[in-house]
Amino acid sequence: MGEIQKFVFETRIRFIDTDASGRIHYSCLFRYFESAEIEFFRSLGFRTFREDVSFPRVHVECDYQLALLYDDLVQIEVRLAKVGRTSVRLEFRVLKAGQLAAAGCVVMACMDRKTQQGVAIPEELREKLTGAMMGG
Amino acid sequence: MGEIQKFVFETRIRFIDTDASGRIHYSCLFRYFESAEIEFFRSLGFRTFREDVSFPRVHVECDYQLALLYDDLVQIEVRLAKVGRTSVRLEFRVLKAGQLAAAGCVVMACMDRKTQQGVAIPEELREKLTGAMMGG
Amino acid sequence: MGEIQKFVFETRIRFIDTDASGRIHYSCLFRYFESAEIEFFRSLGFRTFREDVSFPRVHVECDYQLALLYDDLVQIEVRLAKVGRTSVRLEFRVLKAGQLAAAGCVVMACMDRKTQQGVAIPEELREKLTGAMMGG
Amino acid sequence: MGEIQKFVFETRIRFIDTDASGRIHYSCLFRYFESAEIEFFRSLGFRTFREDVSFPRVHVECDYQLALLYDDLVQIEVRLAKVGRTSVRLEFRVLKAGQLAAAGCVVMACMDRKTQQGVAIPEELREKLTGAMMGG
Repeated sequence: MGEIQKFVFETRIRFIDTDASGRIHYSCLFRYFESAEIEFFRSLGFRTFREDVSFPRVHVECDYQLALLYDDLVQIEVRLAKVGRTSVRLEFRVLKAGQLAAAGCVVMACMDRKTQQGVAIPEELREKLTGAMMGG
Repeated sequence: MGEIQKFVFETRIRFIDTDASGRIHYSCLFRYFESAEIEFFRSLGFRTFREDVSFPRVHVECDYQLALLYDDLVQIEVRLAKVGRTSVRLEFRVLKAGQLAAAGCVVMACMDRKTQQGVAIPEELREKLTGAMMGG
Repeated sequence: MGEIQKFVFETRIRFIDTDASGRIHYSCLFRYFESAEIEFFRSLGFRTFREDVSFPRVHVECDYQLALLYDDLVQIEVRLAKVGRTSVRLEFRVLKAGQLAAAGCVVMACMDRKTQQGVAIPEELREKLTGAMMGG
Repeated sequence: MGEIQKFVFETRIRFIDTDASGRIHYSCLFRYFESAEIEFFRSLGFRTFREDVSFPRVHVECDYQLALLYDDLVQIEVRLAKVGRTSVRLEFRVLKAGQLAAAGCVVMACMDRKTQQGVAIPEELREKLTGAMMGG
């Protein structure tokens, strides 16, 4: 009770996501964050890309500590760091063999798909998100 | 007169499109074909992604002859190979320092965006395409 | 006995792989083929990207029958269609709700990574591949 | 004199970089940053991916203000914000029709490609970078 929800998504680094340096191309890590995010929200019972609203990013960042190579097996921890009236902040930690390889975050804002304007997060989603924050 | 339209798109191979082999990832060449296609159609005065119709691919293929490396300067020749009632076939040749590095094609079908069904190419587009085939 | 090896890789279509048409971008399907291929070869006990050799593509193609949308769950069947002295042909079928959504193939050639020249497939790999063809 | 170097890279948003929301996929903006960076460094007379060293990212971030759509023409301003002993910080501003659409930065660290360890930026590069900071 009171525990912040932690979700772990496990994946391998795909060949296409490496570059001529032999490592993952840094921008591709956001691709893995997205997969982790989608499965995290699925585990809470919803999708963020819907008929009525979607959640475009307003801010993203990432710090890289270790090289990620082709076929590396990584665990991506997803943490719901903040649920605001109109936005959500997710934090990610990438672990490789138990060591922190990268850490990042995305802030997404709720947008009405018809008007393309920011709106409050639908009550139904907000409840699930708040429940997850509370460790519900 | 009677010459088949040839359009050349020049670009460099971007770092993100390479992989750990040190070469371009083969699938990324389709990205460059797309840029060449868009600029080719722009040169004819239109876009294929429109309010009424779009042109999803129904067939694509590519043969690879030479390694393409980071920062290589390539010329992509676009040739309008066939304009049917409902589909268009484009052929691409990738040249690096005057040598053929790859060759491919895409076949795209005209689709009504509302019904998501195949339809005849709008007359206005067909005329421009046929004109281009005739070397107009 | 005599059955050709069939391997099935299941995945969801990721948001990043869609485009403004609302469907998967056609070129991204090759990304999924690659994941299926990697896991197929892993199931046979090897990797094709090694210290000594790698397997660049020499030919790829794909036919698209059904729209693939964000979050669609698909099964990708991998079939080892041909094992030559220097090359391997893999065929892929993409199923969505039991229906054929796309079908493609890749032909990869064995290359010595030092000389960057084509070479015969190492005997150890060839045996595993031939065994798989035989349904071993 | 004393002016901080500003470099502008102009491009169109490619179809493949959009997603089912109809906008650019946020992570693809880093692809455009990379193209801008490569051309910026080329204008200074060098490449950062070399035999001896490369410059993996250690930190990246981006803020998104406006939707970027397929075929939008954007100007990406590149600014050399900091040249340290072992790292470089570049800042990017994306303009669409004169309005700020996004702003981001990347911090890259100089790495010896053989040892895969951080090293001081080679003197020759440092001079060119410092010259560019000074408006040289």
